[in-house]
Amino acid sequence: MIKKFLNSPGPTAVPPEILSDMAQPLIHHRTPKFSDIIKENHAMLKNIFMTQNPVITLTSSGTGAMEASISNFLSRGSKILVISAGKFGERFGEIGRAYGADVIELKAPYGKDVKAGEAAEVFRNNPLIEAVYTEYSESSTGVAFDIKGFAELTHNTEAILVVDGITAIGAMEFKMDDWGVDVAIAGSQKSFMIPPGLSFIGVSEKASKKMDKAGMPRFYFDLKKEIKSLENSTTAWTPAITLIMGLNRALKMMGKEGIENIIRRHHIIAEIIRSSLKSIGLELQAAPGVRPSDTLTAVKVPAGLDGIKIPGIMRDRYGVTIAGGQDTLRGKIFRLGHLGYVDKSDILIVLQALELTLKDVGYKFEPGKSIFTAQKMIMENYIF
Amino acid sequence: MIKKFLNSPGPTAVPPEILSDMAQPLIHHRTPKFSDIIKENHAMLKNIFMTQNPVITLTSSGTGAMEASISNFLSRGSKILVISAGKFGERFGEIGRAYGADVIELKAPYGKDVKAGEAAEVFRNNPLIEAVYTEYSESSTGVAFDIKGFAELTHNTEAILVVDGITAIGAMEFKMDDWGVDVAIAGSQKSFMIPPGLSFIGVSEKASKKMDKAGMPRFYFDLKKEIKSLENSTTAWTPAITLIMGLNRALKMMGKEGIENIIRRHHIIAEIIRSSLKSIGLELQAAPGVRPSDTLTAVKVPAGLDGIKIPGIMRDRYGVTIAGGQDTLRGKIFRLGHLGYVDKSDILIVLQALELTLKDVGYKFEPGKSIFTAQKMIMENYIF
Repeated sequence: MIKKFLNSPGPTAVPPEILSDMAQPLIHHRTPKFSDIIKENHAMLKNIFMTQNPVITLTSSGTGAMEASISNFLSRGSKILVISAGKFGERFGEIGRAYGADVIELKAPYGKDVKAGEAAEVFRNNPLIEAVYTEYSESSTGVAFDIKGFAELTHNTEAILVVDGITAIGAMEFKMDDWGVDVAIAGSQKSFMIPPGLSFIGVSEKASKKMDKAGMPRFYFDLKKEIKSLENSTTAWTPAITLIMGLNRALKMMGKEGIENIIRRHHIIAEIIRSSLKSIGLELQAAPGVRPSDTLTAVKVPAGLDGIKIPGIMRDRYGVTIAGGQDTLRGKIFRLGHLGYVDKSDILIVLQALELTLKDVGYKFEPGKSIFTAQKMIMENYIF
Repeated sequence: MIKKFLNSPGPTAVPPEILSDMAQPLIHHRTPKFSDIIKENHAMLKNIFMTQNPVITLTSSGTGAMEASISNFLSRGSKILVISAGKFGERFGEIGRAYGADVIELKAPYGKDVKAGEAAEVFRNNPLIEAVYTEYSESSTGVAFDIKGFAELTHNTEAILVVDGITAIGAMEFKMDDWGVDVAIAGSQKSFMIPPGLSFIGVSEKASKKMDKAGMPRFYFDLKKEIKSLENSTTAWTPAITLIMGLNRALKMMGKEGIENIIRRHHIIAEIIRSSLKSIGLELQAAPGVRPSDTLTAVKVPAGLDGIKIPGIMRDRYGVTIAGGQDTLRGKIFRLGHLGYVDKSDILIVLQALELTLKDVGYKFEPGKSIFTAQKMIMENYIF
């Protein structure tokens, strides 16, 4: 018998009580009962985003919300700055080009971040930049960006700051209004502990004003229409009802724990995982001196090992699903997710399966060392 | 105690075994196990659409697939013909205009249909038309359109025929390849018996060829990317995993019953409902001589009654959720859904609650008459 665990950087495991709520008989979405759910969810989402402004729920993956963050605020030829150091951040550039934006890209190597100072220089040299797009937690490399620093760029300018917070919001400190983020994006299958199919997008007043002048075509992802629907506690189109019911339960669980505690839990778990990995000689993809993400850890495959095999062996032989590297990082890293429905037990579950897997692919280390390190730190930091 | 039933034209009731499948622990979407599901689903969807060509599954409502059917095949300024007689058909025109298409509209009054002959005339007079958009079952009026007739228009021309089959495919006869439909759209929360959140779009070879020249911007709904992903049994973006698991079970149930039997079941249920309603003096929104849809029945509110109240009373007092009229038909009609997970029992459930509701709003009729009519016909037509 091999128990199965989902410890990827998304989708994440769904708590049994949420699975059970989502398995209740379907209700219709144009009913007072469902409107109450929309209203409750909205108030709770605003608490997570730390904003007074609307946070829209779309039936799509996070990429849909990223597209909405381009098409609702820009016109053909609009100049934008995309700051990235990984596959997901780069997606803003791809979407921008697909819609005819004039994209300036500021990239750092995968595993590094872009410093706010560098970005400020590019921003100053290009006064026509209408919007700056960046990522909070780059899911392909496990690096966290300095969003507070980037927000200073657009503050007191006409430009808006758009943040992909898909693997960050709801797990890492994020203060949309305080920091001055104009558009913030999150996804259901990450910190929100529910299956994929919903994305969330918060829109500041400054960003809202840009919508009227934005000439890019949009229909399904028309945020103005969604904001108007939200005012009537409904959605513009038929939403993914079961996921929205699950979200209701998830947001209540998150509210009960408290966002500060959630953030602390994620930070401690991430710290323990990072130290445990280092204790058996592994290196992180996040370069030294760069802030690692607290929701996932990308680990370099040690020299000489067949990295492609690691996620498959870990899943099929030892029951734990993690993620491999993507595109140019394929076979060079593997990625452990630790966000959403995770506690101390997940640390040990991931590390025990990883040690077994690493032994199978021929890595030399002291068996049990990462588990020992983890348990020691768990006992010292027990706050769960 | 009042039992709750969902008898709207979508979302529809979900069978308990599907709810239970969707409540299983989440699996990751980039795994061999999930790829097998995608592959199985694809083969079964092709059987339902009756096509040899790809049928893509998108994480969105049906409106998302409608948008995809505009943005993937056209360029700014492309001339299109939109044939409609209701709110949902008109949506193609709205999307077309949002994307800068040159839209010619051919409309019939709500409750009627557009005849293929009329459409042929407009089509011939406008040789630059690149695509014809229409609806099979108009969910706002309960009218079925002559898709086979419209297909003759575009046959042997460069133009493509796009059909909104959201409340038709999987419940009414539909032969995508035989009839010559180029793009066909369906939605999960209709005949497919699962919650909303997925849409399906079949693409003919002729339509596929238009994609390369189509200049409208698209990213999340990029069908070429999805077709390529489908060839590798995956999806371009993170899909709504639980819904896709539920779809797998639903398609297997549909395969076991057989599409011919499903179509017959829907037709008989619809016939019985229509006759039963008429037996208590009610009139359908579908005008005499016009083919009514077999998946929903729109009923005119008898003169002098407060039609706005009917769906609310029926739901809150008698436990059965149906739908009201929308926009200009608000308060003038109510709509009974009979698609997907429906059998003989649903006929009686809907009619008993409707009779009780009609009595409450002051309609004069012989109590029990519609139920009597229905039961008589059920016994004569028993094939379930």
